[in-house]
Amino acid sequence: MHILVINSGSSSLKYQLFAMPAEQPLCSGLIERIGTEDSVIRHKILTGQSPQTIERKESIVDHAAGLQQMLNLLSDSDVGVIRSRDEITAIGHRVVHGGEYFANATLITPTVKETIKSLFSLAPLHNPINYECIEMAEKTFPNAKQIAVFDTAFHQTMPEYAFRYALPDALYRDESIRAYGFHGTSHKYVSQKAISWLNKPDASLISIHLGNGCSITAIQGGKSIDTSMGFGPLSGLVMGSRSGDIDPSVIFHLLANGYSSDEVSNLLNKQSGMQGLTGFSDMRDIGKAVNSGSAAAALACEIYAYRVRKYIGAYAAILNRLDALIFTAGVGENDSSMRQRICSNLDFLNIHLDPQKNSALSGEIRAIHTDDSPVRILVIPTNEELEIANQSFALLHND
Amino acid sequence: MHILVINSGSSSLKYQLFAMPAEQPLCSGLIERIGTEDSVIRHKILTGQSPQTIERKESIVDHAAGLQQMLNLLSDSDVGVIRSRDEITAIGHRVVHGGEYFANATLITPTVKETIKSLFSLAPLHNPINYECIEMAEKTFPNAKQIAVFDTAFHQTMPEYAFRYALPDALYRDESIRAYGFHGTSHKYVSQKAISWLNKPDASLISIHLGNGCSITAIQGGKSIDTSMGFGPLSGLVMGSRSGDIDPSVIFHLLANGYSSDEVSNLLNKQSGMQGLTGFSDMRDIGKAVNSGSAAAALACEIYAYRVRKYIGAYAAILNRLDALIFTAGVGENDSSMRQRICSNLDFLNIHLDPQKNSALSGEIRAIHTDDSPVRILVIPTNEELEIANQSFALLHND
Repeated sequence: MHILVINSGSSSLKYQLFAMPAEQPLCSGLIERIGTEDSVIRHKILTGQSPQTIERKESIVDHAAGLQQMLNLLSDSDVGVIRSRDEITAIGHRVVHGGEYFANATLITPTVKETIKSLFSLAPLHNPINYECIEMAEKTFPNAKQIAVFDTAFHQTMPEYAFRYALPDALYRDESIRAYGFHGTSHKYVSQKAISWLNKPDASLISIHLGNGCSITAIQGGKSIDTSMGFGPLSGLVMGSRSGDIDPSVIFHLLANGYSSDEVSNLLNKQSGMQGLTGFSDMRDIGKAVNSGSAAAALACEIYAYRVRKYIGAYAAILNRLDALIFTAGVGENDSSMRQRICSNLDFLNIHLDPQKNSALSGEIRAIHTDDSPVRILVIPTNEELEIANQSFALLHND
Repeated sequence: MHILVINSGSSSLKYQLFAMPAEQPLCSGLIERIGTEDSVIRHKILTGQSPQTIERKESIVDHAAGLQQMLNLLSDSDVGVIRSRDEITAIGHRVVHGGEYFANATLITPTVKETIKSLFSLAPLHNPINYECIEMAEKTFPNAKQIAVFDTAFHQTMPEYAFRYALPDALYRDESIRAYGFHGTSHKYVSQKAISWLNKPDASLISIHLGNGCSITAIQGGKSIDTSMGFGPLSGLVMGSRSGDIDPSVIFHLLANGYSSDEVSNLLNKQSGMQGLTGFSDMRDIGKAVNSGSAAAALACEIYAYRVRKYIGAYAAILNRLDALIFTAGVGENDSSMRQRICSNLDFLNIHLDPQKNSALSGEIRAIHTDDSPVRILVIPTNEELEIANQSFALLHND
């Protein structure tokens, strides 16, 4: 059975085709700058001995045209991995916001679409484009099952005392203002891997997703009990260009000093985080700057690690036990010096990193704690596309 | 030597007169609703066998008139505790914001006054009135030394990675946007008491100030290394009417949905916290509501305690050791059931509360941990006025 996974952004479209249940990726692709003259499509065929990449630059006017291009490549007589669109049994759509309605992968029906639409105001940048892509995929793949996998779903198990803000009750009841959390698909994927590795279904885990966006989740027995992103994907850890946690007084101060609301929002979402502190949002550039003696870059790394350390402590307290830390996503998987910064001097929490193991390289799950560390430290590559394919497959088999 | 302590608010004036170095309070008072027709002055004489209170209702047009009334009562031929204003050697003023300029109590000079003035934009509700009261006190008590004790001073020892936000560097360099922290006088007072009690100058402490405003501070060797309030007194713990930590996305969402900046600021500062969740800002009312079965009040208490618990974990992690928790201020000193909620299930951090000791009453420092708890738990009554008098006295003696 073939399951296609689609992850749509405002001007981009990511896709990956899997043979299931073998979990075998057949091809993947990324279309960027949709709606401009210089769109780019990068399509990777994964069935051969070594991956083969096709790159095309041409104007792709909208997401519908992008989906058509993708279909042409998937079923191309020469490089295609399927013969017809009807070989695709299901399409798993990443949908950013499921509100309080969706705690699991969900077969898309007219009612589900209406609900996704009703959540536009909670995720104005993401849900509308996700919705649009679902409608286009329904037209382009009329015989496939359409399935939604929500970024918020995994966190729906958070207890009310964890997801509520200390705001007037009506803002929650009437306006749905609460913490939802994001990156749920990633946190679920790596925490399941960790539970298997530990062979401990009731493990107390802290999953640390450090990519361009960053979040950290406390997991008890496979369930999210708290996470650092909240109502939107802005709070918590320091990110590539997002501020993470900040005293709300700062916002009122900036508004009182002549900034518009959009300017402050733009500032916190796009010009802050590592970008604001160093001028770079990519940790590899920042690492280079640290190595060439930049004090600003060194300070930014300290702030970044410090914030993670505080969340580790907070979540260790509420879990009241800690079996393992999990590092994942671009920075978490690849930046050994940041992992070392984060895990230093945490003996009080029984966390002991092994510097040798930490700096060794390898693709799959790696344990980087010392032999006598009560808390395990695992590096687990995330794979949100595979998790979406797996959840879609399980849904079709009522698994 | 007599030292008078003055704590001025927008429409109030608190004062206390001490005989130093005996630390003996001679009288104290509170003037409220200054500038209205129905101002109230409550003056308490503490020199007799039992305190004697004088209450007067009359219009007090401004803070200058309030200071004059206070002086009349202090030196009243009948109930006065001094004969003339010149018996007051020094006046210690509580000043809310000292920016990065003041890490200690400071003798007020024209330069110091200019600096306090330059900080008006960082504390627009507080510094102007503190400044005004300094000028009035200079006129009313021309022969007394005027000393400023800043709410932010104790936290000036925070390392840069703790006080910086992940915002563009220029916002810190040019606009002084960083975490300052507040309640410093209280955290310093109780942490010094704890250090003496433990007889351990390098103790790792977490000081939990739970009053109408709430904040929590990590203290290492007598120095603040992190605290939950930041740029203003809004972030961190859930308070009487303030939200504490909240995802900044919520603010942009409200602004986009028709709220004005002032409305949102007012909402977070005055209608949130326990007030927003329960309709009550006073924990005694909330305790009654919990006892009579209110689900909203029970949830609010869970949220309140949960937030404190997370900060305890975060600070335990960065201290990487924990000698004692300190509870102080109205709720911290008096609400044993809240202390129990906060300290439950923290075995992983070696925190064990003794329920019997916790519910016993007594005025001075109380230890409420179990005999075998590695982390001590102390209830220490705060006394910001005495701390201001002590710091003023020490300054005059270059101590």
